[in-house]
Amino acid sequence: MRCELPKVSIIMGSTSDLPIMEKAAKTLDEMGVYFEMNALSAHRTPMEVEQFAREAEKRGIRVIIAGAGMAAALPGVIAANTTLPVIGVPIKGMLDGLDALLSIVQMPPGIPVATVGVNGAQNAALLAIQILSSSDEVLAMRLKTYKEGLKEKIVKANAELAEVKYEFKVN
Amino acid sequence: MRCELPKVSIIMGSTSDLPIMEKAAKTLDEMGVYFEMNALSAHRTPMEVEQFAREAEKRGIRVIIAGAGMAAALPGVIAANTTLPVIGVPIKGMLDGLDALLSIVQMPPGIPVATVGVNGAQNAALLAIQILSSSDEVLAMRLKTYKEGLKEKIVKANAELAEVKYEFKVN
Amino acid sequence: MRCELPKVSIIMGSTSDLPIMEKAAKTLDEMGVYFEMNALSAHRTPMEVEQFAREAEKRGIRVIIAGAGMAAALPGVIAANTTLPVIGVPIKGMLDGLDALLSIVQMPPGIPVATVGVNGAQNAALLAIQILSSSDEVLAMRLKTYKEGLKEKIVKANAELAEVKYEFKVN
Amino acid sequence: MRCELPKVSIIMGSTSDLPIMEKAAKTLDEMGVYFEMNALSAHRTPMEVEQFAREAEKRGIRVIIAGAGMAAALPGVIAANTTLPVIGVPIKGMLDGLDALLSIVQMPPGIPVATVGVNGAQNAALLAIQILSSSDEVLAMRLKTYKEGLKEKIVKANAELAEVKYEFKVN
Amino acid sequence: MRCELPKVSIIMGSTSDLPIMEKAAKTLDEMGVYFEMNALSAHRTPMEVEQFAREAEKRGIRVIIAGAGMAAALPGVIAANTTLPVIGVPIKGMLDGLDALLSIVQMPPGIPVATVGVNGAQNAALLAIQILSSSDEVLAMRLKTYKEGLKEKIVKANAELAEVKYEFKVN
Amino acid sequence: MRCELPKVSIIMGSTSDLPIMEKAAKTLDEMGVYFEMNALSAHRTPMEVEQFAREAEKRGIRVIIAGAGMAAALPGVIAANTTLPVIGVPIKGMLDGLDALLSIVQMPPGIPVATVGVNGAQNAALLAIQILSSSDEVLAMRLKTYKEGLKEKIVKANAELAEVKYEFKVN
Amino acid sequence: MRCELPKVSIIMGSTSDLPIMEKAAKTLDEMGVYFEMNALSAHRTPMEVEQFAREAEKRGIRVIIAGAGMAAALPGVIAANTTLPVIGVPIKGMLDGLDALLSIVQMPPGIPVATVGVNGAQNAALLAIQILSSSDEVLAMRLKTYKEGLKEKIVKANAELAEVKYEFKVN
Amino acid sequence: MRCELPKVSIIMGSTSDLPIMEKAAKTLDEMGVYFEMNALSAHRTPMEVEQFAREAEKRGIRVIIAGAGMAAALPGVIAANTTLPVIGVPIKGMLDGLDALLSIVQMPPGIPVATVGVNGAQNAALLAIQILSSSDEVLAMRLKTYKEGLKEKIVKANAELAEVKYEFKVN
Repeated sequence: MRCELPKVSIIMGSTSDLPIMEKAAKTLDEMGVYFEMNALSAHRTPMEVEQFAREAEKRGIRVIIAGAGMAAALPGVIAANTTLPVIGVPIKGMLDGLDALLSIVQMPPGIPVATVGVNGAQNAALLAIQILSSSDEVLAMRLKTYKEGLKEKIVKANAELAEVKYEFKVN
Repeated sequence: MRCELPKVSIIMGSTSDLPIMEKAAKTLDEMGVYFEMNALSAHRTPMEVEQFAREAEKRGIRVIIAGAGMAAALPGVIAANTTLPVIGVPIKGMLDGLDALLSIVQMPPGIPVATVGVNGAQNAALLAIQILSSSDEVLAMRLKTYKEGLKEKIVKANAELAEVKYEFKVN
Repeated sequence: MRCELPKVSIIMGSTSDLPIMEKAAKTLDEMGVYFEMNALSAHRTPMEVEQFAREAEKRGIRVIIAGAGMAAALPGVIAANTTLPVIGVPIKGMLDGLDALLSIVQMPPGIPVATVGVNGAQNAALLAIQILSSSDEVLAMRLKTYKEGLKEKIVKANAELAEVKYEFKVN
Repeated sequence: MRCELPKVSIIMGSTSDLPIMEKAAKTLDEMGVYFEMNALSAHRTPMEVEQFAREAEKRGIRVIIAGAGMAAALPGVIAANTTLPVIGVPIKGMLDGLDALLSIVQMPPGIPVATVGVNGAQNAALLAIQILSSSDEVLAMRLKTYKEGLKEKIVKANAELAEVKYEFKVN
Repeated sequence: MRCELPKVSIIMGSTSDLPIMEKAAKTLDEMGVYFEMNALSAHRTPMEVEQFAREAEKRGIRVIIAGAGMAAALPGVIAANTTLPVIGVPIKGMLDGLDALLSIVQMPPGIPVATVGVNGAQNAALLAIQILSSSDEVLAMRLKTYKEGLKEKIVKANAELAEVKYEFKVN
Repeated sequence: MRCELPKVSIIMGSTSDLPIMEKAAKTLDEMGVYFEMNALSAHRTPMEVEQFAREAEKRGIRVIIAGAGMAAALPGVIAANTTLPVIGVPIKGMLDGLDALLSIVQMPPGIPVATVGVNGAQNAALLAIQILSSSDEVLAMRLKTYKEGLKEKIVKANAELAEVKYEFKVN
Repeated sequence: MRCELPKVSIIMGSTSDLPIMEKAAKTLDEMGVYFEMNALSAHRTPMEVEQFAREAEKRGIRVIIAGAGMAAALPGVIAANTTLPVIGVPIKGMLDGLDALLSIVQMPPGIPVATVGVNGAQNAALLAIQILSSSDEVLAMRLKTYKEGLKEKIVKANAELAEVKYEFKVN
Repeated sequence: MRCELPKVSIIMGSTSDLPIMEKAAKTLDEMGVYFEMNALSAHRTPMEVEQFAREAEKRGIRVIIAGAGMAAALPGVIAANTTLPVIGVPIKGMLDGLDALLSIVQMPPGIPVATVGVNGAQNAALLAIQILSSSDEVLAMRLKTYKEGLKEKIVKANAELAEVKYEFKVN
C-alpha cells in the first residue's frame, strides 16, 4: 500500500482528539485505504487549514475527514476552501458534544459538511469508503464483505444471548 | 438530459416534506444531474423502502438523499440496506427539528448517514454533486463555477450594504 | 413454564444493551411470563428485523419489547412490520439518552411505539404484563399483588426513615 | 355501537387539549371502538382522577388514553391508581412540548406509562386498538386493513410526486 | 424542641433521595424548626400522598417540602390536595435533572409549586423558614443572622484567596 | 381596600413584561390582597433594586413577586437583599423561556427563589396568597373557595365535552 | 464624523442578518463612533474573511463585531486571524439560535470570542464602546450618560405602571 | 510587577470556582499583566459586589473578569454597576454549565457581558489582554508572540502525529 498516494485525509483540531479520530484511521487501514493524518486548527492555524484545503485535491486527496470539538469550525472552514466532500466528526467535550454537533452540521446553503454522530470517527471512515467505492470495484467488494461481517457479529451475539436467556427461564 | 438514467435518488418520508426536499431537486436540476424523486416511509412502507435500497445500486443510482422528520428512521434504514452513500436531511416538524437531527445523525458504528443541517436539502444536493464529481470532470467544473457564484453573491450583497451603511453615517 | 410458547419477545439493538434489557427479562420471569430474548439491529440486520416482526404474531408473540440507543430506529421499524403492540426502551448512550428517546417516541401518525423512560426496561416488562393481563386473570391477579408490594416497600422505607430522622431531632 | 360499554377512556387535563385529543376520538370512532371522553385534572380535580382510575376497570374500560401538557402528571397519576395500560399523550404548550414529554415518559420503576409523541393522539388511539386487538379478531382485521391504507396513501402520494418531479426534469 | 408539633413536612418520592433531602432536614434542625420526614410516592402510594396532603394543615403543618426525580409528580400532586405552600425540589437522576425540574415547575394555572434548583434541598428549607418567619419574630431574627453568616464565609474565603493570589504575583 | 398598606410587591424587569405580570395583579385583586406594582431592573437600575429589596420588609411587604426574562437576575438579586420570600416568574423571550427559567431557579445555597413556571404570573400570585394565608384566616377561606372553583370549571368543561363526544359516537 | 477612519468594523455572514446587525450600527452612530459594515462569510468567502481579519488592525480598526447564524464560524475565524478583540453576535435562525450561540461562544483555549446574547447586536455595539472608552475620555463620558438614560427609561416606565396599577386597585 | 496597580480584576462567585478561575490568573501572570483576585457573590454579598463594581474604575481597573456557576448573576450585576468591560465565565456545575452560560450571555439591551465558553477562564484572560493591548504596544507584542506559540504547538503536535500515523500504515 505504501507507494500509493493517500486518498483520504484525516484532520483533527487538536491531538487530544486522537483517541477518537484514530478509529477512522484504523478502519481505513483495515479496508486497505491509504490515508494521511494531521492536526490542524481552524482557530490556531487558520492559514495552514486554508492552504491544506486548497491543495488537497491537487495532491490526489478524494475525501477529507475532519474532527473537532466545542465551537467546531474546522470541517466547515475546510469545506469552504475545497469542492471535495468533507466529512465532519463532532468530538464530545462540553455539553455532551451538542455544541460540536450543531457547529458542524448546521452549515449555510452552499457549503455542506457530511456530518456523522458524536465521536463517530469509524462511521466517518466508512462513509469515505462508500464515496471512494463508487469508482473502485475492489473497494466496493470489500465494503460489502465488511457489512456482512456486521450482520455475523449480531448473529453470534444472539447465540450468546440464548445462553444468558437460559438463566432467567429455568425454575 | 432525458435519456440518461438517474444518478441521484431523492426520497422523502412524506409528501408534506416536498416544499423542503424540492430544493434538492432544483439544485440537482440546475447542475444538470439527472435524478428521481419518490415518497417512501420507513414506518408506513417498510418493505418498499428495503426493496428500493437493495436495488438502487443496480439501477445505476450512485447517491441517495433521504429526508424525514420526527423519529426520522428513513435515512438510516436505507443505509442499512445499501452500500451507496446516503445523505440524510432532518426535516423540521416538532422540537425545532432536533428530534429528526438526532434520529438521523446518531447512527451506530458500521452504518453511517451523511447528515446535513435541519431542512438542508440544498446542501444535500451539493454534497451528492461533490461525491459524483470525483469521477465526472464536467460536473466538477460546474461545481467550481457554482462555488464562485456564492462568492459573487456576497460581493454584490456587500455593495448593497455600502448604501445601507450610508444612512447611518450621514449626520 | 417451559412447554409454553413465549408471549413476549425482547429485542435489543446490541448485546451491549443487555445490562439494561435483562431487567425486563427478570421482571417477566418473576411474574411467570414466558419470553424470548434476541439481539437484532435495524441498521445491521434489517432483513432479520423485518422477518422477525412479520412472523412474531404467527409464532404466538403478543407483545414486543425493543430497546435501542442513539438513532434508535429498532422499535419503530418493528412497529412498521407488525400490528402487535411494540414497547420501546430508549437506552442511554450519548446525549443522556435524549437522542434515543426522541428517535423512539416521535413516531409519525399511523405507527405508534409505546415508549417508556430512558433505560426503563423494567417498566417495559410491566407494561407488557398489563397488556397481557386483559385476557389473563391469573396474571392480572399477580400484577395487583406486585403493585401492593411497591407500596409496602415505601412503607418499610418510611419506617427506616423514621430512624434517620431521629438523628436530626435530638439535641 | 351504542349499546356496548366503552372500552377506551380518553382523559384530558384541560378542555383546551380537545383539538389534539379529538384525533384519538376520531380514530377510535373510525375503527368502531366504543369510547368515552372526559376532562379531569391531576392538579385541579385530584380526587376525581383517583376515583376514575380506581373504578375504570370495573366499568369495563380496558385501556386509558390520557393527554396533558406542561408538568403533565395526569397519565402517571392515573397509572398509579390502576393496573390497566395507560397511554400518555404529551400536549405541546410551552418549551415545544418537551416539558410534557419528560413529565409523562420518565416514570419511576413499577408504574409505566406507554408514551407516544408530542400531540400524538392519533397514535395513542392506534396503540389502544393494538392492545384491544389481541383478544378481538374483528378489530385485529380492521387494524391490518387500516395499515394497508397507510401504504396506499404513500403509493398515491408517490404518483402525485411523479408529476411534481416532471417540472424539474424538462429542459 | 420535642414537645412542639412539626411545622414543616419533608416528603421524598423514594428513600434513594435521602442524601439530597437530608440537607433540608439539617438546615431546619440548625435553625430550630421542628419538622417531620417521610417517603411517599405519587406513583407508588397515591392514596397515602393524598391523605397526607389533605390532613397536613389540620395536623399543624405550615409548609411542605417535596423532593422527587424524573417524572416528578409528587410536589404537584401534594399541591393539588392542600392550600399550604408546597416547595418542590427536583432531584437529579436522568437527563441532568431537567426532567424533574420541568415536571415540578411547569404547573398549570391554579396550582403553584414553589420550585428551587436541582438538588436544592437546603434552599427549600430556607424558603420554608422565610415563609414561617413572617409570623415568628425569633425565627426571623435567626434567619437574618444566618444570612450574615453567608457573607462572612465569603469574606473568609476572600482572605484565603489573597494567599492563593500571592503565588501568581511573585516573580 | 385602599387604606391598607400593600402586602405583596410585584416587580418586573421591564414594562414589556406587563402583559404577563398583570395576571398576578389581577389574581391578587380578585382575592382582595392589596399590592403594589413596579418596574425595576437588576441590570439597568441596580441601586433602586437593592434599595427596594432592603426596605420592602419595613414598609410592610410580606411577599415579593419578581418577573424577568432572558438572563433574569432580578428575582435572585432581590432575594440577596431581603429575607422576605421572593417568588420568581421566568418570562418567555428567547429560547422558549429556558434561559429565564434556569437563571431564576438555579440559585446557590443560601439564597432561594420560589420559582413558578414560564409566564406563570397567576401561579405566583396564588403562591403569595398561600404564604399570606398562614396568618390570615379570611384569606385562607377565600383560597379554599377559589380552589373549589377550579374544580367546578373542570366539571363544567366535562359537561360540555359530553356534547362534543356525541358527534363522534353517532353513526 | 466623516473624515475619521472607522474604529469598529461590523461584519455579518449574510445580508439576511442586516435587520439584526443594523442595531449595532445604529447604536454606534448614536454614540458618535465611526464604523464600517460589510457582509463576509467564513464559508462562502473564506479568503476575504482572512484577508479582512489580517488587515483590520493596520487599517485602524480597534474592535470587530461579527454576527452569524447556524454553524456560525465567522466570529471565531476572524478571531483566529487577528489579535483585535472580536465580539460575536449569534443570529437566531434555526433551533432558537442555540446552534449559533454554541458555535460562537465555545471557542478553544487561545482564541476567545466575546459573545453577547442571541440577536444581541445592540449590546455588541455597547461592548465595543466600552472597550474603546478606556482610551477615549469623551466616549467614556457619553457612555455614562447613555447608561443614565437606561435608568430614566425605567423610571418613566414605572410612572406609567402606576396608572396601569390603578385599574386593579379601585373597587 | 509589584509596584503597579492591578489592571484586571478577577472575581469569582465562590472559592469552589478557583480551580477554573486560576487559569485566568495564570495566563495574566504569564503575560505580565498585574491583576487582583477576589471572591464576591451577587447573591451572598450583594452590597460588596456593587461597591466593588462602582469603585473598580477609580482604582485603575480596566477590565473585570467574573466567573460564576448555576444562576450566574455575578457578571451581569457587576456590568450593571460599571461602564468597564466585563468578561463573564460560565462555570460548569449543574446541567453541563448550560444554566450558567444562559444566565450570563442572555443580557438585556444596554448592559452587555462579554461571555466566553463554559469554564473558559484562560480565554477570558486573553480577551482582557486583547482589550488592554489596544493602548499598550508592549502587551500587544507579547500577545502576537503568544498566538505564534499556539501555532507552534499544533505544528509540534502534527509531528508527533506523524509517528502515531506510522503504526496504522505499515503492513
